Formats: sequence, structure tokens, C-alpha cells
Amino acid sequence: MSIGVRVAVVGATGAVGAEFLRLVEKKPFPIRSVRLFASERSAGREIDVLGQRVRVENLDGADPTGIDVAFFSAGGAISRAHAPRFVSAGACVIDNSSAFRMDPAVPLVVPEINLDAIPRRPGLIANPNCSTIVLLMALHPLHRVARVESVVASTYQAVSGTGARAIEELESQVRAWVESPGEPAASEVYPHPIAFNVIPKVQDVVDRGYTQEEMKMQNETRKILRDPAITVSATCVRVPVFRSHSIAARIVTERKIGVEEARRALAAAPGVKLVDDPASERYPMPLYTSGEPDIQVGRIREDWTSDRGLLFFVAGDQLLKGAAQNGMQIAAALVASGRLA
Amino acid sequence: MSIGVRVAVVGATGAVGAEFLRLVEKKPFPIRSVRLFASERSAGREIDVLGQRVRVENLDGADPTGIDVAFFSAGGAISRAHAPRFVSAGACVIDNSSAFRMDPAVPLVVPEINLDAIPRRPGLIANPNCSTIVLLMALHPLHRVARVESVVASTYQAVSGTGARAIEELESQVRAWVESPGEPAASEVYPHPIAFNVIPKVQDVVDRGYTQEEMKMQNETRKILRDPAITVSATCVRVPVFRSHSIAARIVTERKIGVEEARRALAAAPGVKLVDDPASERYPMPLYTSGEPDIQVGRIREDWTSDRGLLFFVAGDQLLKGAAQNGMQIAAALVASGRLA
Repeated sequence: MSIGVRVAVVGATGAVGAEFLRLVEKKPFPIRSVRLFASERSAGREIDVLGQRVRVENLDGADPTGIDVAFFSAGGAISRAHAPRFVSAGACVIDNSSAFRMDPAVPLVVPEINLDAIPRRPGLIANPNCSTIVLLMALHPLHRVARVESVVASTYQAVSGTGARAIEELESQVRAWVESPGEPAASEVYPHPIAFNVIPKVQDVVDRGYTQEEMKMQNETRKILRDPAITVSATCVRVPVFRSHSIAARIVTERKIGVEEARRALAAAPGVKLVDDPASERYPMPLYTSGEPDIQVGRIREDWTSDRGLLFFVAGDQLLKGAAQNGMQIAAALVASGRLA
Repeated sequence: MSIGVRVAVVGATGAVGAEFLRLVEKKPFPIRSVRLFASERSAGREIDVLGQRVRVENLDGADPTGIDVAFFSAGGAISRAHAPRFVSAGACVIDNSSAFRMDPAVPLVVPEINLDAIPRRPGLIANPNCSTIVLLMALHPLHRVARVESVVASTYQAVSGTGARAIEELESQVRAWVESPGEPAASEVYPHPIAFNVIPKVQDVVDRGYTQEEMKMQNETRKILRDPAITVSATCVRVPVFRSHSIAARIVTERKIGVEEARRALAAAPGVKLVDDPASERYPMPLYTSGEPDIQVGRIREDWTSDRGLLFFVAGDQLLKGAAQNGMQIAAALVASGRLA
């Protein structure tokens, strides 16, 4: 650790923070040092990183001097309170919260799509919403060849998108069911039991019946694709799956795109794996995309409700490509272009 | 049991058969006698029905004389082989299989929608596909006021739709996970584990990438609504839920229908319960529609991808309204109009 990038992970003890640390271990670029930050409650804990024992620092009052890139994943309030002072101290902040995503001055980046949105001297960069990234990885290759005008999306979202406590809630509800199947399950994280159920509401309702999560899918898609006209009508649903979000999407394109042309565009797209042979039981599923870097797309069919419509099903690990991996890819691209350290 | 209808349940030992028997116990109309039929394997078993012990008869070679109404739910092959001879012997057959649904001579009936499709002297009547019934219960009240032109539907289907063995498979996979979380789950009924996973393929692919289940949703909808122009583009997905199918639907209507008008039409529809107050965590869910006779609809919103579009989420017990209850309602209507016994 003598040459290379000085990295910080803020929210190091959370679910996405843990994924950032796992990616750091893979040395995506030369790393000189790693600092870890968390709230006072978790400060003082020690975590092994790249063969060294690193003490978690209390974010409040910490001095961010000497950090090249900081990955924030501790929620919007923490990002709003601390990201600006990290940037002032010279760090590039890659923020996984929604705090700055729609700020016109802040680039919102999926590296496969709009790396060019990052300025020469990057300050704050926002990592998009996880469902939006999973959708866009399949949407963008089709948008490039035929311009997507609209999307109707129904999601199948894993509990790990809510965080570690939601994973525990699903686990404990399933264990309780095995012990006494008749008993109603106790719920704290979600308003209703998630085991053996689906909950058709992710986050709060904010706009004409749409939830925050559903609004993010439209607003962030518009910003990332630089297309204020594209519409995304989403229904976001939590399902009893631990990891990986899935989305059933129906798109309408400006120019009609056939199934074979769509398959070719998706097969050629970086970060996308075409898994589309239902007769051989090959289609995207959360179980097999968990822990995988690529987004999987399949069930590609012509839509019968529009002469320019197409249906597909996409699944991807929302903690990896939908969060930490996307952020790490941004950092790696900045290192490669000499904009970090 | 001296006056009333002479009832038969064919497939009495199956998942839907059990629901038919539970409904018989509620005496939806006067019942004189109940005969039970199953395959040779289950024949000879005895089941208590309306306070009497009834022996299950072997369907092969059984004499169907003296039956007023027979509820068939033993699969398409059994219906094709035996329903015609029950009809010839004078029975009205209400068939839950897909064998005769698209036969132009056979009425396909949801009592709230098209009871008038049943002729004066009913012979064979088909019970629609379970996902189709759940969708149509919400679709029809909107179709009546504004004519639905097209539907994009993504389903969240329970394992009990596959049958008793699929319920056992989900149970055993969940138990195995509790005992040794790291081990891959064994699957026999489904091609992949269903516990903590979603499988975006229900039945086989039959037509341009669409599965049988997806085709049924379009074809049966057209027949029941007597509207050959309506298009339904469905993506059918199995989820780790025991009971009740859910569907995220986006419709386009001929005349624009607002959210409030849609709510009024749905609230007034028989068999439909409006559950649409997401701020109070009230929306349709499989957990709370299981065992319930009504279909629940909520998350009603304007669709942004069309100026005549509407989104909603619907959930309903596919073994009740989606199968046995719908069949029993047909029989009750025939009794009430003097067309049975």
C-alpha cells in the first residue's frame, strides 16, 4: 500500500458497505490505503482489509483529508451531512444514496451508459437506484439501436435491497413458519409479513399514487439516458427473495425492433448476459444472478399490445451491479483516465 | 339428502377437488347426494361429505347415470376422456381443465361477467384459467365503463396453482434451507428451486416465445369478454407464495378513465374488494386474500406511458375464485334459474 488510490468506505458496516469491501479485496485498481467510516455506534470495530486490520472511524468529526475516493452508502441524511466536506477536502465522492441523484450539478452514472457525464475534475458522483440500474442495463442497448419511448415495468425486488434487518426478518419469519406454520409472522421492517407473501409497495407514496422507488425509475432513467421524454410506469413489488432484483418490462421503441435484433444488441452489450432459451429452462432468475457481476436478460418476445412493443425479463444482483460494483466501476474508470490520484 | 341437486366431484382427492368439497360443505344450494371420483390409485378412499362417509369411485368404468352436475378438476386428459360421457348421461359438467375452454361450442364462464353465455339446457361449461379469472374480475368493471383495448400483465403466481406436490416442494425447500442454508435445494416439480427465487416461466412455451399460461390470458380474455380485438401481453412468473395469485396490470382504455372513476367502478363490482390506501399500508396481497372469496384491487394509478392508461395491482385466491368457487357459483346460478335438477 505505498502507491495507488487512497480509498474510503463510508457506511462500512452496512450491507452495501460490505460489498464495497469485498470488491476492494479484488483490487480493481492499485490501492494505497483504505479508511473506514461509520456512525458512532459502529465506530471502533476492526475489519480486515487487504491484509491489514483497519479500525472503523466515527464519521462525525472525522478529518477527510488525504482521501482520493470515498464510497458513501450510509443513507441520504449521512450523505447530505458529510459528502460535501469530503469533496471540499479533495475527495471524489461516489454516493450510493438518493440525496444528490437528481441534482443537475451531480452526474448520475452507469459506466456502460454515460461515463462521459463525469467532468474532467470529478467531485460528487451519484450511483443510481438499484432497480433503475438493473432495468437500464437491458434498456440501454435497445435504446441505442431503436430509441425506447416508454417502459411499463413490474419489479420483483429482493429484501436485501432494504438492508441487513430485512434479510433477518425474512429469515426469522421462515424459521418461525417451520417451527409453527399456523402462527402469524411478526413484522418490524416491513408493514406486513414478507415470507410467502409479496408486498406491492416499495418505499412511500409520493406522487399521484406512485412510490419513491417507482418515481426514481422514471426520473433517473430520464437523467441517465439524457432523454426527458422517456416515460417509465413502474409497479415496485417486494418478494421473498434474499438477493437480486428482477423486472418484467414492456418497452415501446420509436423504430420497431424484432426479437432477433434485440437479442443481438443485448448479447453484444458489456455487463449483460443473454439467458433466453425457455425451452431449455434458461431465463434470468434471482437465485442464479446473486453474487454475479452481469445482469441477465431473457424471455424476449414481441408485445402484442403495440406494433413497436417488446417484452423482456431482467434479473441482476442489486447489491453488486445495482450498487457497490457500479460505484467501483466508476472509480476504476476514473483511475484509468488519470482523474483519481 | 332427499331433495336437491345430485353432485359429483371428479378429481376429488386433488387440490382443487378439496376446495370443491369445502364449498359443498357450505351448502351453496340444496344438495341431494354427492359422488366422488378419482383415478384408480385414489379410488376406495373414504371422505366425509355433508355428514356422510363417501367412498371415492374409480372414474374408469364408473356409471355417471343420475348426476345433475359434475365438477371436473383432474386435468385435461381426464376431462377429454370422461366429461363427454357424463354429459351424455345427463349431467351438466363444469370443467376446470383447459381441455374445452377454447371450443366455440363450450361456454367459458365467469358468473359476474358472462352468465348469459350458458344455454337454456347446459351440457359442458368451462371454468377459465385461474390467472385469467383474477385479472378479469378487475378488468371487466373497467371494460364495461371505458372498453379496455389492451393489457400488459406481470403475474406473481402461487405454487398451489401447480398442485399439492408444488406446495410440498416449496415447504421442503424452505425446511432444508433452515436446516442447512448453504446447500442447494432439490427440485422435482419445478425446473429450478422456487424457495427464495422467482421463476419467470409458467407452463411450456407454445407461441412466439409465449407460454401456455400467457396465451390463455389473452385467448380466454377475448372469449369471455366477447372481444376478439383485446390484446393481453402477459409475463407469467411463479413466486414463493403458497396461495393466491397477484397481477400487476397496465391497461389502455378506449375512453380515458380517471383514477376516481376506476375506483368507483371497482368498488361497485360484485366479488371485488377495493383495497387501495397505500399510505395506510392497504393494498392487495396474497397473504390476505388466501381463503377469501373476493378478489382485491389496489395501487390504482394513472399510467404515464399512455394518455388512456391505468395501472393496478390485483390479488385473489386462485383455488377459490380462480377455480372451485367460480365453478360452484356457476352451478348455483344454474340451480337458481331452474336449469339444474
